[in-house]
Amino acid sequence: MTTTPEPPNRRPQRRRRRRRLSIDDYVQGVLKGDRGVLARAITLIESRKDSDRPAAQAVLQALLPHTGAAVRVGITGVPGVGKSTFIDAFGMHLLEQGHRVAVLAVDPSSAISGGSIMGDKTRMQRLGMAEAAFVRPSPSGLSLGGVTRRTRESLLLCEAAGYDVILIETVGVGQSETVVAEMVDTFLVLMLPGAGDELQGIKRGILEMADILAVNKADGDNRLRAQAARQEYQAALRYLHRRDPHWKTPVPLISGQTGEGLPEIWETIGLHRAQLQETGTFNQRRSEQRLRWMWDAIEEQLLSAFHETQAVQAQLKGLEAAVKNGERPPTVAAEALIAVFRESYSSSSQSSPS
Amino acid sequence: MTTTPEPPNRRPQRRRRRRRLSIDDYVQGVLKGDRGVLARAITLIESRKDSDRPAAQAVLQALLPHTGAAVRVGITGVPGVGKSTFIDAFGMHLLEQGHRVAVLAVDPSSAISGGSIMGDKTRMQRLGMAEAAFVRPSPSGLSLGGVTRRTRESLLLCEAAGYDVILIETVGVGQSETVVAEMVDTFLVLMLPGAGDELQGIKRGILEMADILAVNKADGDNRLRAQAARQEYQAALRYLHRRDPHWKTPVPLISGQTGEGLPEIWETIGLHRAQLQETGTFNQRRSEQRLRWMWDAIEEQLLSAFHETQAVQAQLKGLEAAVKNGERPPTVAAEALIAVFRESYSSSSQSSPS
Repeated sequence: MTTTPEPPNRRPQRRRRRRRLSIDDYVQGVLKGDRGVLARAITLIESRKDSDRPAAQAVLQALLPHTGAAVRVGITGVPGVGKSTFIDAFGMHLLEQGHRVAVLAVDPSSAISGGSIMGDKTRMQRLGMAEAAFVRPSPSGLSLGGVTRRTRESLLLCEAAGYDVILIETVGVGQSETVVAEMVDTFLVLMLPGAGDELQGIKRGILEMADILAVNKADGDNRLRAQAARQEYQAALRYLHRRDPHWKTPVPLISGQTGEGLPEIWETIGLHRAQLQETGTFNQRRSEQRLRWMWDAIEEQLLSAFHETQAVQAQLKGLEAAVKNGERPPTVAAEALIAVFRESYSSSSQSSPS
Repeated sequence: MTTTPEPPNRRPQRRRRRRRLSIDDYVQGVLKGDRGVLARAITLIESRKDSDRPAAQAVLQALLPHTGAAVRVGITGVPGVGKSTFIDAFGMHLLEQGHRVAVLAVDPSSAISGGSIMGDKTRMQRLGMAEAAFVRPSPSGLSLGGVTRRTRESLLLCEAAGYDVILIETVGVGQSETVVAEMVDTFLVLMLPGAGDELQGIKRGILEMADILAVNKADGDNRLRAQAARQEYQAALRYLHRRDPHWKTPVPLISGQTGEGLPEIWETIGLHRAQLQETGTFNQRRSEQRLRWMWDAIEEQLLSAFHETQAVQAQLKGLEAAVKNGERPPTVAAEALIAVFRESYSSSSQSSPS
């Protein structure tokens, strides 16, 4: 339509120029720790094209023996708590200790906003530039189930690529914290300094999920408020059911800005891990997590097959409206949709095996 | 094999003698408030036979215009808190006020134990005998999803039969409290008198779900302890996120044994309902609940179709073991099972439309 010359860096063109990688290219590249190949392998497992799944499966299967060794840490906190600054500083501290650090994110809100966290790598300025670090934003345009499955698989790829610490960031949207807590060994919750009123807004169960509850921004003028906050949080923790009876959630004061308390966070993660291993909880939890992943994947795939069936889509809106205003019993509407799905499911499987 | 005469009361024989009811028999019987027909209609919707579903759907569809008017109350509390005694006494109080009361239960543990709550109607001695009451144990042998769907449908049937108060009891197993909280208007949590230590065991989020948090057994020597407990619970509630910003969860002292505080519980339920209606939350919540029911039903039916597929069953154990010990990536195992399911699903639909 237009006669102006195409800009030289158009993405589709660049993509087309990239060599297609074989399964073995992916596997060997990831095992060598090649960040470019790792990034492309993650893109492969994030792909929503059915035709990409067999290759993604094969890559995962081949890399599986090289996974599982990393320290998996989940990190959450309300917007403004300083997650990026913390992860940047904490990651740099770990690099200095000789670790290789990967940062992933679970952010289902990116389905709507187009990426509210980590869409911009410059948020973690130092870490984003470091050789021994790998920073990957949350996959976008997906339900929480879709993001979850892909993040779990990315975690395995990063482990196979030799990252020995995996930090998984999440925002406090819906069930995303629960989902992250269930894919890591240690769950770190960042809190703001401040007392009383701020506790009112704490989300259900978030305190109970925390293996470490760190009061961030405990620097400068905030110090006293941070100490008061620690006391409040410690009091609140006494009222709650512990995830693990052998572990009492510590409430350290830290500052992502000044770096204070960050070495101690790493030590505490180590203590927590040692305690999990000593009681046998570590292997048990990992094993349960794997089984849970399988069932989540099954549910996700069944539901997405359901949603993607055109015959279902054609009826969905009308039936949803009828259910909302009480014209149809929910289960009757459900069964009507299931019947439609059942008829189309296998026939669709015959037409899309490309 | 044996020559002894058959015992006269064998159940299969009695069943066989019962006349088969037509859809219209069910509908008219339920609308007349016939408890026998209501019980059989619930048995129909609880049936796990696919061939019973069309009739169950038709009954529900016909009765739907006659549902929705009851006050729906969820009741939970730890074993030993006195749920049965409370429900018996509270139900009798409501009958005296001219109400008709149905009691249902959500107890997924009955899948294992064969019915741990309400299997025995004698637990609610007076209510079980009363003309204007209907007591139904939890369906057993089902997953939480299965119990949930059937309880929601039973609730509708009870409303159509003219019960204007529906009490839904649950034990604190897994997610069963969340499930009940999402099918009622008012969620009542019963607590034991006693302070400090007893708060430690409170389940995640249970306090936040409570619209009313009643300290039961607040009688005799327990009075002082109950008052101390109330203070503790009130303090704990201050730390938590409220389900509804317009409603401050009251913490009344009651006794199922002596009947103290029971009329006030009913008044509080009325206040809560009025407040929900005033802010428009009532209709909105009911509407969201219906949509949620539909999606839950879809998920339940997809998953149960999956589980019941023989080709899936044949592979499941081996793949689960391989996932648990880390031999297969969870998603690879999931996709193998999905592929097996996809192949059999539609063909099974053609062979079982009886």
